[in-house]
Amino acid sequence: MAGLYHAPVMQELMKQFAKLPGVGPKTAQRLAFFILSLPRDEVRAFSESLVNAKETMTLCPICFSLTDITPCQVCRDETRERQTICVVEETADVFSIERARDYRGLYHVLHGSISPMEGRQPENLKIKELFSRLEGEGAGGVREVILATNPDVEGETTALYLARMLKPLGIKATRIAHGIPVGSNLEHADAATLAQALEGRRVM
Amino acid sequence: MAGLYHAPVMQELMKQFAKLPGVGPKTAQRLAFFILSLPRDEVRAFSESLVNAKETMTLCPICFSLTDITPCQVCRDETRERQTICVVEETADVFSIERARDYRGLYHVLHGSISPMEGRQPENLKIKELFSRLEGEGAGGVREVILATNPDVEGETTALYLARMLKPLGIKATRIAHGIPVGSNLEHADAATLAQALEGRRVM
Repeated sequence: MAGLYHAPVMQELMKQFAKLPGVGPKTAQRLAFFILSLPRDEVRAFSESLVNAKETMTLCPICFSLTDITPCQVCRDETRERQTICVVEETADVFSIERARDYRGLYHVLHGSISPMEGRQPENLKIKELFSRLEGEGAGGVREVILATNPDVEGETTALYLARMLKPLGIKATRIAHGIPVGSNLEHADAATLAQALEGRRVM
Repeated sequence: MAGLYHAPVMQELMKQFAKLPGVGPKTAQRLAFFILSLPRDEVRAFSESLVNAKETMTLCPICFSLTDITPCQVCRDETRERQTICVVEETADVFSIERARDYRGLYHVLHGSISPMEGRQPENLKIKELFSRLEGEGAGGVREVILATNPDVEGETTALYLARMLKPLGIKATRIAHGIPVGSNLEHADAATLAQALEGRRVM
């Protein structure tokens, strides 16, 4: 016998787990064995919840966030301010910003960022849809677009690209502030963050 | 609107992911959104692989490892030495030991360890089955039982418990060695490991 091999059904399950972000082969094996330790009903519930989520969630035709209702919770909410649109990379970012309970405007989800290195061009993102929204009849006069893409190279590139496109429309483009996270300290901040924190200083 | 809520199908999927070891609520949300980013076919394959694994894998009636064939790969392999049984807590441990490609005996999987604190008593483990195996006709004269439970409190308790039960049967009980991991260094070793490494020293 040439070494112990995993059963084909287990190999397949490990392959599936290993697709998840942050899951390597060792964790995938641990998760696969964990699944076997669950009662049959719970495994079935897990299995069904994957398909249910995928089949139920769709893109909001206005802001392109993932939603189970059309339009989404935010777009249908008449108490939200319609003069501001916050542009984010992913639907999860909408939830992050909502948790801060500070923002009352609308959103637009790009579904990624511009990354020529990884072959993600502007036309692969919901950018055309953003501008249709801004120029369209139902726009209701958007005055500000907040660019809340991630503070990495791709996110900055995307923000810069959008800011340039927004300029001729006379819509104010703003970028979320970079700086020292609240509750953190200077000692732990990296140089790039510190430089941005200094540049973005405000009069007290 | 009282804050943004996740769609019920997403809440359910996050709840399922959060059951996995090492997955907290933030990771569960990230994994749930990742699932939505996969093509429908891939989600279906993932979903099916969970149920397939659970429905296919059973316990080997001899060593109680999780297997898709009966008896399992090891128990059916006539080239394995039948005088030695290596006792482990979980099926995954069998694969870990097999990767070392050094051991040629049989296994016995306990499915846990003794932990009075967590209500895991000897009768909840495959201990009765181990002794039926040692005393039974098909035993073929087992001479040594290697106790390869984990080197934590529960694993040590289990090893001690089994060693005491093996004594009257005249079967040699051995415990895997504790010590400094190969490739590691003394500086990183904790005090308990170092104490065990010193105690287990050998003449060179």
